[in-house]
Amino acid sequence: MDISPLATPLPPLPAIAGVRIATATAGYKRWTRADTLLVALAPGTSVAGVLTRSLCPSPEVELCRARLAGGAARALIVNAGNSNAFTGEAGRGAALAQGEAVAAHLGCAPEEVFQASTGVIGVPLPVDKALAGAAAAHAALGTAGFAEATAAIGTTDTFPKAAVTHAMVGAHKVTLVGIIKGSGMIAPDMATMLGFIFTDAGVAAPLLQGMLAAATATSFNCITVDSDTSTSDTVLAFATGQGAAPMIESMDSPGADAFAAALADLCGQLARLVVSDGEGATKRIEVRVTGATSGPAAHAVAMSIANSPLVKTAIAGGDANWGRVVMAVGKAGQPAERDRLSIRFGTTLVAARGAVVPGYDEAPVAAHLAGQDIEIEVDLGLGEGRARVWTCDLTHGYISINADYRT
Amino acid sequence: MDISPLATPLPPLPAIAGVRIATATAGYKRWTRADTLLVALAPGTSVAGVLTRSLCPSPEVELCRARLAGGAARALIVNAGNSNAFTGEAGRGAALAQGEAVAAHLGCAPEEVFQASTGVIGVPLPVDKALAGAAAAHAALGTAGFAEATAAIGTTDTFPKAAVTHAMVGAHKVTLVGIIKGSGMIAPDMATMLGFIFTDAGVAAPLLQGMLAAATATSFNCITVDSDTSTSDTVLAFATGQGAAPMIESMDSPGADAFAAALADLCGQLARLVVSDGEGATKRIEVRVTGATSGPAAHAVAMSIANSPLVKTAIAGGDANWGRVVMAVGKAGQPAERDRLSIRFGTTLVAARGAVVPGYDEAPVAAHLAGQDIEIEVDLGLGEGRARVWTCDLTHGYISINADYRT
Repeated sequence: MDISPLATPLPPLPAIAGVRIATATAGYKRWTRADTLLVALAPGTSVAGVLTRSLCPSPEVELCRARLAGGAARALIVNAGNSNAFTGEAGRGAALAQGEAVAAHLGCAPEEVFQASTGVIGVPLPVDKALAGAAAAHAALGTAGFAEATAAIGTTDTFPKAAVTHAMVGAHKVTLVGIIKGSGMIAPDMATMLGFIFTDAGVAAPLLQGMLAAATATSFNCITVDSDTSTSDTVLAFATGQGAAPMIESMDSPGADAFAAALADLCGQLARLVVSDGEGATKRIEVRVTGATSGPAAHAVAMSIANSPLVKTAIAGGDANWGRVVMAVGKAGQPAERDRLSIRFGTTLVAARGAVVPGYDEAPVAAHLAGQDIEIEVDLGLGEGRARVWTCDLTHGYISINADYRT
Repeated sequence: MDISPLATPLPPLPAIAGVRIATATAGYKRWTRADTLLVALAPGTSVAGVLTRSLCPSPEVELCRARLAGGAARALIVNAGNSNAFTGEAGRGAALAQGEAVAAHLGCAPEEVFQASTGVIGVPLPVDKALAGAAAAHAALGTAGFAEATAAIGTTDTFPKAAVTHAMVGAHKVTLVGIIKGSGMIAPDMATMLGFIFTDAGVAAPLLQGMLAAATATSFNCITVDSDTSTSDTVLAFATGQGAAPMIESMDSPGADAFAAALADLCGQLARLVVSDGEGATKRIEVRVTGATSGPAAHAVAMSIANSPLVKTAIAGGDANWGRVVMAVGKAGQPAERDRLSIRFGTTLVAARGAVVPGYDEAPVAAHLAGQDIEIEVDLGLGEGRARVWTCDLTHGYISINADYRT
């Protein structure tokens, strides 16, 4: 598969105290690449997570949801090439067995092992391969870094995706590293894809959960590639507390605000990386909606635009077809009045108060649409609600990838 | 544009007493084809209609909505190549002027003239062309039939679409003819596209409205091509009462049930013709959902499957990727339990109770998917709710058509 034209190089990814990494090849598909990621976490690591709202989730998702209640993590294991979703008792048994094996290797409780699998739906995870992959990875612990980790969890991804940021907690700099995979089956209003965030900061688990949920609302829940929501979507954040910074117990603790802001920034970076690797994408699209009657109304209108195949194909063709934006506003089911609506592409106002602006010149819009980063702004002119979402264009590449993915 | 591989020949379309037809070329685009349809209706014709729920509708839609209250129609005028949507006062003025011109030609009230326009959004209908087109069509009244009528209203349509049926009202056979256009921007739960139905039966307007609304619920509201909803969608039914059959005043009138059934059958035929001309379509897909907790829940799940780009691209590729059907069920937001779910492609049960069926043989499914008519059946195993919707596959053709439609 060709690398996305929107790909960016992996930044230098520092190690995180309390995090040991290994990858291995279980062979979930006929390939020789690493497809298993094992991360061992220091005792005392807190964990938070957001998971798919799909009503048909994988057993890994169900296990994570149950285990998050404990707030403590000692390991993460990720399988790529098989999502183990919709695989009944066989799949659930394989997931349980792999988690127990990891717990035995590391001498922790199975409830402290977090698991994720990604790939084709409907084929039970082969338990022999899953156990061999976990054992091989355990034997190699500490030999890999985050670059190898994010490469090991990809499926239709065309480039490895990760981000790094820092925050000051008291006098101490803490580091946050996130790795993420995802390219298709990326959809709104859910925790999306597989994303894993590691920090040497110490953060109480309930607080970390609140911070991650807030960060997700403006990052992972604001992107869409194709409006389809995975059965396996998982974002987990692990805080080892192995750095020098003091524990963040509440939002009143020193550095809590800075850490939460850094976490939100990291989630935003990771989310936009996924859009940049959207299946078949050639352009990133940022949709901003202002003037809505509420924030959720603005989000719904923005998602209606970002999910419209007619808007996305128009952008793919470099066509300033703002009529399709009108259409997408009209179908969103949220308060809107045609005669108050205005639309911008880039910095150019193209339509205002229900009609094209007098003397509208398409040339600067065409120039904007010829670039890789497209901005669409809609002012509904009704209230103060605003939202921002990110998506990509819809191209022949998406069809080619998905009309013969499994075969 | 190539003709859809799913195209069917136009059936013989009889004349309807009380209906006179003409087409003309207003030249809304640089073409020589007819792009204006005028239908003159006998005095006493009743009318019913369903219109887009878009919050940004065209002025033609607003005029139809207001005029339906009167229940009486003397004319229909349709412009193809310009939807006149989102065109502010200029567009509304043009629509009003064309309607008044038609009323003057025919000696009726403007409130008895029904109007529709279809094509690019955002360009005001050129009033000079609109008036010239109406005048030319009026001069030619009676020279065209339904075949010419349906050809004149098409835009990205690749073949003309119409259907005919009959019903017995008392001892008299009545005839119903429907013409329809639509190929893209076809979406769920709205009156979709432009469709016009004519009958020589006499049906009281409020009763006709109820019958049309019921027929729409199981036909036009059960199809989707691309999940995008037009700003101009209009379906109108005209009953001239010029046949020999007695007037249908209520559901207790002789023939009322038979007429309503014939109307529903006609709407179903027309709706499936639109799917057969879905932009880029190579396969028709019928999605049946049973065992839902309610009818609306079943409809929502069926539409989630029918709108999923991953399901539609899998079908395009002949790939029995039932995992994507699971995904679409999971994201629909309706009650569903993975471990009660079963899925069929064609007549083959592929998954039951949360996992692939033992000994599943993909060969008969692959053979089914190689055909043009694909059936996907999902049993949620929870209740008695059921629904049936129709869509088409998502192919490179859809991208090609829509990435350079306007330019």
